[in-house]
Amino acid sequence: MIRIGIIGAGRIGKVHLESITYHVKNAVVVAVADPFMNEETERFIRSMGVEEVYKDYKEIINHKEIDAVLVCSSTDTHASISIEAIEAGKHVFCEKPVDHSLEKIQAVADALAAHPGCRFQVGFNRRFDHNFAAVRRAFDEGRIGQAHILKITSRDPEPPNPAYIKVSGGMFLDMTIHDFDMACFLTDSDVEEVYVQSAVLVDPAIGEQGDVDTAIITMKMANGALAVIDNSRRAAYGYDQRAELFGSKGMAATANDTLSTAVISDATGVTGEKPLFFFLERYMESFSEEMRQFVDACENGKDVPVGIHAGMQSVKIGLAARKSVEEHRPVKISELD
Amino acid sequence: MIRIGIIGAGRIGKVHLESITYHVKNAVVVAVADPFMNEETERFIRSMGVEEVYKDYKEIINHKEIDAVLVCSSTDTHASISIEAIEAGKHVFCEKPVDHSLEKIQAVADALAAHPGCRFQVGFNRRFDHNFAAVRRAFDEGRIGQAHILKITSRDPEPPNPAYIKVSGGMFLDMTIHDFDMACFLTDSDVEEVYVQSAVLVDPAIGEQGDVDTAIITMKMANGALAVIDNSRRAAYGYDQRAELFGSKGMAATANDTLSTAVISDATGVTGEKPLFFFLERYMESFSEEMRQFVDACENGKDVPVGIHAGMQSVKIGLAARKSVEEHRPVKISELD
Amino acid sequence: MIRIGIIGAGRIGKVHLESITYHVKNAVVVAVADPFMNEETERFIRSMGVEEVYKDYKEIINHKEIDAVLVCSSTDTHASISIEAIEAGKHVFCEKPVDHSLEKIQAVADALAAHPGCRFQVGFNRRFDHNFAAVRRAFDEGRIGQAHILKITSRDPEPPNPAYIKVSGGMFLDMTIHDFDMACFLTDSDVEEVYVQSAVLVDPAIGEQGDVDTAIITMKMANGALAVIDNSRRAAYGYDQRAELFGSKGMAATANDTLSTAVISDATGVTGEKPLFFFLERYMESFSEEMRQFVDACENGKDVPVGIHAGMQSVKIGLAARKSVEEHRPVKISELD
Amino acid sequence: MIRIGIIGAGRIGKVHLESITYHVKNAVVVAVADPFMNEETERFIRSMGVEEVYKDYKEIINHKEIDAVLVCSSTDTHASISIEAIEAGKHVFCEKPVDHSLEKIQAVADALAAHPGCRFQVGFNRRFDHNFAAVRRAFDEGRIGQAHILKITSRDPEPPNPAYIKVSGGMFLDMTIHDFDMACFLTDSDVEEVYVQSAVLVDPAIGEQGDVDTAIITMKMANGALAVIDNSRRAAYGYDQRAELFGSKGMAATANDTLSTAVISDATGVTGEKPLFFFLERYMESFSEEMRQFVDACENGKDVPVGIHAGMQSVKIGLAARKSVEEHRPVKISELD
Repeated sequence: MIRIGIIGAGRIGKVHLESITYHVKNAVVVAVADPFMNEETERFIRSMGVEEVYKDYKEIINHKEIDAVLVCSSTDTHASISIEAIEAGKHVFCEKPVDHSLEKIQAVADALAAHPGCRFQVGFNRRFDHNFAAVRRAFDEGRIGQAHILKITSRDPEPPNPAYIKVSGGMFLDMTIHDFDMACFLTDSDVEEVYVQSAVLVDPAIGEQGDVDTAIITMKMANGALAVIDNSRRAAYGYDQRAELFGSKGMAATANDTLSTAVISDATGVTGEKPLFFFLERYMESFSEEMRQFVDACENGKDVPVGIHAGMQSVKIGLAARKSVEEHRPVKISELD
Repeated sequence: MIRIGIIGAGRIGKVHLESITYHVKNAVVVAVADPFMNEETERFIRSMGVEEVYKDYKEIINHKEIDAVLVCSSTDTHASISIEAIEAGKHVFCEKPVDHSLEKIQAVADALAAHPGCRFQVGFNRRFDHNFAAVRRAFDEGRIGQAHILKITSRDPEPPNPAYIKVSGGMFLDMTIHDFDMACFLTDSDVEEVYVQSAVLVDPAIGEQGDVDTAIITMKMANGALAVIDNSRRAAYGYDQRAELFGSKGMAATANDTLSTAVISDATGVTGEKPLFFFLERYMESFSEEMRQFVDACENGKDVPVGIHAGMQSVKIGLAARKSVEEHRPVKISELD
Repeated sequence: MIRIGIIGAGRIGKVHLESITYHVKNAVVVAVADPFMNEETERFIRSMGVEEVYKDYKEIINHKEIDAVLVCSSTDTHASISIEAIEAGKHVFCEKPVDHSLEKIQAVADALAAHPGCRFQVGFNRRFDHNFAAVRRAFDEGRIGQAHILKITSRDPEPPNPAYIKVSGGMFLDMTIHDFDMACFLTDSDVEEVYVQSAVLVDPAIGEQGDVDTAIITMKMANGALAVIDNSRRAAYGYDQRAELFGSKGMAATANDTLSTAVISDATGVTGEKPLFFFLERYMESFSEEMRQFVDACENGKDVPVGIHAGMQSVKIGLAARKSVEEHRPVKISELD
Repeated sequence: MIRIGIIGAGRIGKVHLESITYHVKNAVVVAVADPFMNEETERFIRSMGVEEVYKDYKEIINHKEIDAVLVCSSTDTHASISIEAIEAGKHVFCEKPVDHSLEKIQAVADALAAHPGCRFQVGFNRRFDHNFAAVRRAFDEGRIGQAHILKITSRDPEPPNPAYIKVSGGMFLDMTIHDFDMACFLTDSDVEEVYVQSAVLVDPAIGEQGDVDTAIITMKMANGALAVIDNSRRAAYGYDQRAELFGSKGMAATANDTLSTAVISDATGVTGEKPLFFFLERYMESFSEEMRQFVDACENGKDVPVGIHAGMQSVKIGLAARKSVEEHRPVKISELD
């Protein structure tokens, strides 16, 4: 039984709490800490059977009974809290991105090198999505052959509020970072070079924050494959999350998930359901699965499925993408070393 | 909080136990009883946090702390145990079919009439399936118009073993009974007449038991709609569960659920996944939902979504279907009164 | 080069004329006759390069240069004109149904027996439809295994006018007759027994003509398979033509054809195109293909793909279906012998 | 009635000949010329009812009875023959690309300016494809809103032979040129900038010719939309031709066409048909439709649907794409002016 402390009780912290309580065996949440803890949040936490609720995350770092820490706090604290937890002898599950600064991510990597027993997993939950996992499985089984072209479509149903955009690090480090990780996962390869063609088409307010809301991102993978991601901050029909891997022997492609398979035919056409609304609906099962595999890694000394290398890579690609926009040219990932 | 006792710890009893433990709020399983209780089953029950485990179901009937009883025992005991539970002042969730005998079902109905506070729900879980519920919703919203033709396809991935067939009451009372209930649910109407064309095409051993394994069942609904069910005990590609409601304004049709939306295109064709394997996979979420609604009915004094009328109707249709096979003619449901 | 005369210049006669002119090699239409020939029709016929236009069909029967006759006149004249043409030494393509009377069809069969060189084909064009042909091909290739259940959905976009219904012989002999032939074609078997559950749900005026507009027709095939057809005279979303053959090894199922594959996703849902409007749109290519095969049979002495047996069978099933409605019981086809 | 002369009796010349003969009203092919005319080709031409067959294309240019000339000769002769035909007072349908040289295309444009009565159409047949036309129609109807992202997938079933690649001008001017035109057509906009990430993944022999066989091409459209094309010279599952236009109000997306809608479900999965084999199968109807519209423009003095601007634009984009590969940077189309 792995005893878990959660730091950060925002949306994703609550998702993990509920997920562990209902869907993960061999794990129990012992304590939750959040500096902005309020009554409603505390009530929710207690309804999940958690008895210890704190404001100070140090209560969790220093907790004798806790085996693993979930770092679900704000992005700027991910790296430092992770390092504290690693040094306190805890396993760590850190939400994405590990940080916006490569130096800070390197500091986490260094801490891990000094604590080889520590299981450190990054929260790239989409690797555990049933659809994307099926594409990777087809690739692993050799049904696609050598990877030639990867296409990822990733569009949100609505943009975040402008205040969030300011602190988010911009679309590439906040939203596309998942797609960068998917590109690496689905082709089983690192990225070598990135080029971005982007625009502000959804909301001028996003442009005023210095960010973009629409982009096509081309990448050259280390294994020779080409990859392309298309992003929009607002798809009128909902959360659009698809991938297509094309190779020498064939192609695997996914469609969106829907609430039901029902299709209605009437005088206006043949109409099916829109995609599931947003990431909580679409990826709910993947949050449970990433946690099950993290708990399994902690309990049985296995390798984590998404380690610090993935955490570092995705941020490097994100920074290279920003540079590509600024300098309007293809940027090699190695330029960031 | 509704305190539940489960009678019968076979496959479906375990499904409900796990479902209530993980997916139903405001309910807790207090005790489980099964005459064939063994160590493995007991271990499973205890792992769900249940402390009281019995062989004798009377321990549950007489339990002072229990509000509601789940009758998951063998079919021939459903009616008598239900009556005992009703008379002991419990709410009752009874698995389908309530019984094979209309007299015994009537006895349950009589007991309910004498205990108007009792919530009695029949386990027709498919009413809570996301796909079928979407068809009914479209119908309720008037998008289909007046119902003209209902088509249900219901095919199992493999036949039960011959020993089970003997006690099951035959395909119509065991397997098709769900489809009979679906026909009533999706058209919001009772059945008036039934005609069966059937055959033994899957396995001669089934015919030797006096049963059939393939059937097309035509029904005239009380609201004037026509309905057809096609059944097979073995679909090579897995569990095939579809419905299509056609009316004056349009049609709602469902497809099977699959593990993922991934489609692989290669030199051999464009291939998607097979349907989810069997009822535990396909209908898992519906088992949770029927229990949530039962608990809600018990706790808040609401009407149950599937009452004794549905339990009686479905068996009447099943018996009429058997009669149609024997006498090779359309049979009115009223002939069974 | 086969020289063709067409008798009857109504809708289907024009379809064959255009089809032969543009899509059939080795055939030329030499003459067209129609008792109601008018200027507009004549102009159309001449625009197809046909020089001989008559009112009297005898001009075609007695035409020295004509090898083959297309009988596209009104149903009540099909049999007698066919016999005249056969006896005049012509090959004959006869529209469906050959007649409503089994005696008259038998008379055609007798004439054919006396003229063994005559190629006589019945206009069951759906056998040449790309979708249904693909189902039959899968069956022939053994991919379905032994046939267990055949399902045909056949729904018109709108009912014919009441005047037509009177002379049409009713829904079973006019509309369903195609589906009866499809049932035989797709299972490669004759029909043994038929049972109909029908209703008047689309338009009371149809009922006043003594006909029905909605039906579910169950059949037992000679090879042991079960089959079901569902018919409606009005589908709000258009012409619905699907088939599904289920067997011991798998299932082949078709969807409707559409004008394009374009799907529009917006705030209201994910919407594709409705089925092609009606039989002229959906089956256009099949009209060319049946004619190509007829011409090939005439020119090269091959067997026709749809002979008098199919013409007889389909009418027998239609008459049995009518009897089933009248007597409200399953009717064996052998009862009609 | 438009009298047509065809110059060039290769594959595409024959397609147009058959198309006009069978599917285009108000047009007749009077003569065909080809310097490599052989017996087999001549036989085919005569079987289409054409009486004049020449080796020298001048016979057509100087033909008194010919209204319109189809330039289906080798690419290097397109421009000069077009100019000769224009100056001889003929309407001209010119196969794509008009030329590889912008100067020569400009010379054609100059000739057209001097002959304002001349109808000059470029052979971008995909604009007349039912699927792509449906996307454009949805856009024109305002159902997509403002265009944000256009995605085109265009993959051939197999690469051309190396000898052809040498003279073809490379993948961008030979194959992608259709996709460049589609990008302009589907967004109703010119291209402003292009960036190419490409590779040789299909066949090293293609690389040895100095060409690429796999590419992702990003474009910025003049109307602000972003566009991406992915190309491969070999898709194992066949000819893959899809487009997806995403905008402020929704998305229109197409799937590939198939020979039938039949889907086979068996123990191995749920398998549909592969895309139609190659461009002759997939785009056959579009070849007829472009010709119908060309004939209509000639006969009724209407504007042609695809004029010299489209012919010029597509080649400019292709040349910019080549430059992007050579210089590994985004290239503005205006750099080519």
